[in-house]
Amino acid sequence: MAEPGNEERAKEPRTVPTISDVARHAGVSPMTVSRVLSGGQHVSATMRRKVETSVRALGYRRNENARSLRPGHRSGLVGVVVTNLANPYYAEVLEGIGEILSEANRRVVFGTSHEDPEEEARLIADFVGRQTEGLIVVPAGGPSEHLRPEQRHGVPLVFASRRQDGVDVDAVIVDDVRGAERVTALLLEEGHRRIAFVGNAVSVFTGQRRYEGFERAHAAAGVPVLPELVRRGQQDIHSAETAARELLALDEPPTAIFGANNRNMVGAIKALHAASAARGTDLFARVRLASFDTFDLEELVPGDLSVVTHDARELGRTAAELLLVRLQGKRPDRPTRTIELPTSIRTRRRSEERLPGTEPAQEPAQAASP
Amino acid sequence: MAEPGNEERAKEPRTVPTISDVARHAGVSPMTVSRVLSGGQHVSATMRRKVETSVRALGYRRNENARSLRPGHRSGLVGVVVTNLANPYYAEVLEGIGEILSEANRRVVFGTSHEDPEEEARLIADFVGRQTEGLIVVPAGGPSEHLRPEQRHGVPLVFASRRQDGVDVDAVIVDDVRGAERVTALLLEEGHRRIAFVGNAVSVFTGQRRYEGFERAHAAAGVPVLPELVRRGQQDIHSAETAARELLALDEPPTAIFGANNRNMVGAIKALHAASAARGTDLFARVRLASFDTFDLEELVPGDLSVVTHDARELGRTAAELLLVRLQGKRPDRPTRTIELPTSIRTRRRSEERLPGTEPAQEPAQAASP
Repeated sequence: MAEPGNEERAKEPRTVPTISDVARHAGVSPMTVSRVLSGGQHVSATMRRKVETSVRALGYRRNENARSLRPGHRSGLVGVVVTNLANPYYAEVLEGIGEILSEANRRVVFGTSHEDPEEEARLIADFVGRQTEGLIVVPAGGPSEHLRPEQRHGVPLVFASRRQDGVDVDAVIVDDVRGAERVTALLLEEGHRRIAFVGNAVSVFTGQRRYEGFERAHAAAGVPVLPELVRRGQQDIHSAETAARELLALDEPPTAIFGANNRNMVGAIKALHAASAARGTDLFARVRLASFDTFDLEELVPGDLSVVTHDARELGRTAAELLLVRLQGKRPDRPTRTIELPTSIRTRRRSEERLPGTEPAQEPAQAASP
Repeated sequence: MAEPGNEERAKEPRTVPTISDVARHAGVSPMTVSRVLSGGQHVSATMRRKVETSVRALGYRRNENARSLRPGHRSGLVGVVVTNLANPYYAEVLEGIGEILSEANRRVVFGTSHEDPEEEARLIADFVGRQTEGLIVVPAGGPSEHLRPEQRHGVPLVFASRRQDGVDVDAVIVDDVRGAERVTALLLEEGHRRIAFVGNAVSVFTGQRRYEGFERAHAAAGVPVLPELVRRGQQDIHSAETAARELLALDEPPTAIFGANNRNMVGAIKALHAASAARGTDLFARVRLASFDTFDLEELVPGDLSVVTHDARELGRTAAELLLVRLQGKRPDRPTRTIELPTSIRTRRRSEERLPGTEPAQEPAQAASP
């Protein structure tokens, strides 16, 4: 099958096509080629297609890196750091970011911090060294020295999903506190007095805020939070499953579990399923569930489930838009701002299984607060 | 909250720290700094930490782009194109790629083709223009002109998950044919004669190969494939759900469904769940399921389910390793090769629900074929 050496042949020195070659091939002016290549607005679709075909036919490429070093030119790269790509939530965020940035002719250089601030610092230093024009970061929490403007050499930074104390940059976050508060209040109204909290590390912005909402709802209802039912620090499904298994083994187990993100909820569901099988009893009938964020196949959960939702892709889009405003430098003196996206809650009860095609009841989305 | 202008201050001209500054700050030689920064092997962990701390304290950055333009230096960027990041499978592949590349001091520039060959071509042209050293691509299928060595300017390319006819490069794929064949044979042995196939587009490498395995098992058993039960072309959960809903509405519905990837299986499960609710009957007891690839919460599926699994992260790692061999140019004349990763099958039956902690039976992994 292989014809060895194919790969190598292309490396031999040969004439590199220029913009003029492309223009001649496409039958347009070099200026038009240049305009298409720089993603200019005032080019017809037909023209663009012609030029793109010729670019491909001739194998023409701009030297983007060389361009970025000339004054007034930009690398076109945006560095994005998420904490955990195994969570489909971040895949959605990333899709939203990519959608807006590619419209603006930018590409994403990508890294995962795995919730480790040191890895985050390494990634950011690396991205800045690669002349990225901007950064979008889901901060892991913890030390934030590497996020200071001097450390970034002034490269604009936008936070997505989380914010970090002491770092004053644009951010898009979710209304975590109220989302968690409202869903906890719902469980309390149903009469639950032993509600477990399974969530990620105390140092994580969203973990902190969702716990705050959980506490607020308890305080408002005059019900104490029970420390033995609070498990914080699970960053993946596996550790969440372990935490939930321990909760279910308590002498007095919880009657409800709030999973403060989808990884924690999925882990808790796996633990409930396994414990049900082991004991030969249906624990889903006894433990009411509530989740912050959706997950695949949530309709298969054989018990009552409330889900706090928001639009992850929109969050990504908004983060990219905030960054582009800074990159275009239209209002360099604009104070930083935080956009908080609203959540909504949907509840599915086994007793009232719905027919397909009818949507589960949804509370009205809250207005975005500035 | 905001102290406006914070972002701007950092842009003022100031002295840029040099390697010597870092060396002085860390109390090591400039050579050591240089060695740490280039990811050299012969540096102790202590030394590395010292240098990294000083780099961060001073805000030193190498100009990676400038380096890449000097002869003999490399950009350190690898372009990665996947077809659909909403599928957690590709998130796993990407994690594997990132793991190996970051050890080798390379970063990933990332894009999603959304199964569109034209978008794939645009991404690759863009990456090549940005001086990426190498490319790892999950090809969307369809036209492949843009994948030819001349179009890539000889930038090494590795295929992951799929291969593309007529493009002779290194590839890591899964033993799709045998995986699909074995799981279909299992259903046929159980007596199923109306097995539906729900999978992605005919033009997609894996869709093609898994269908081939499905057909082979039928041929071996002397059972005809029923065209009305074959639905190819679903690339996401939503379209798969629609296809499965149609199958379940047939006068003579299938007694088993093979989902040729996890998006198709999840869609089919959603359709089964909805149809069960609508008809007030448990269709999971009547329709046997088999899936190529795992998905979250598969244990909640209330019916018999077989899953063909393989290690997606390992697939990503292997793709990155193949690319690094080419980048290091150790054996430039080595013929291209395709590594086929083995699959295994696990089956969970509702009638024999297992206790937690005991693993479901797993067939032995097949040996990798070259």
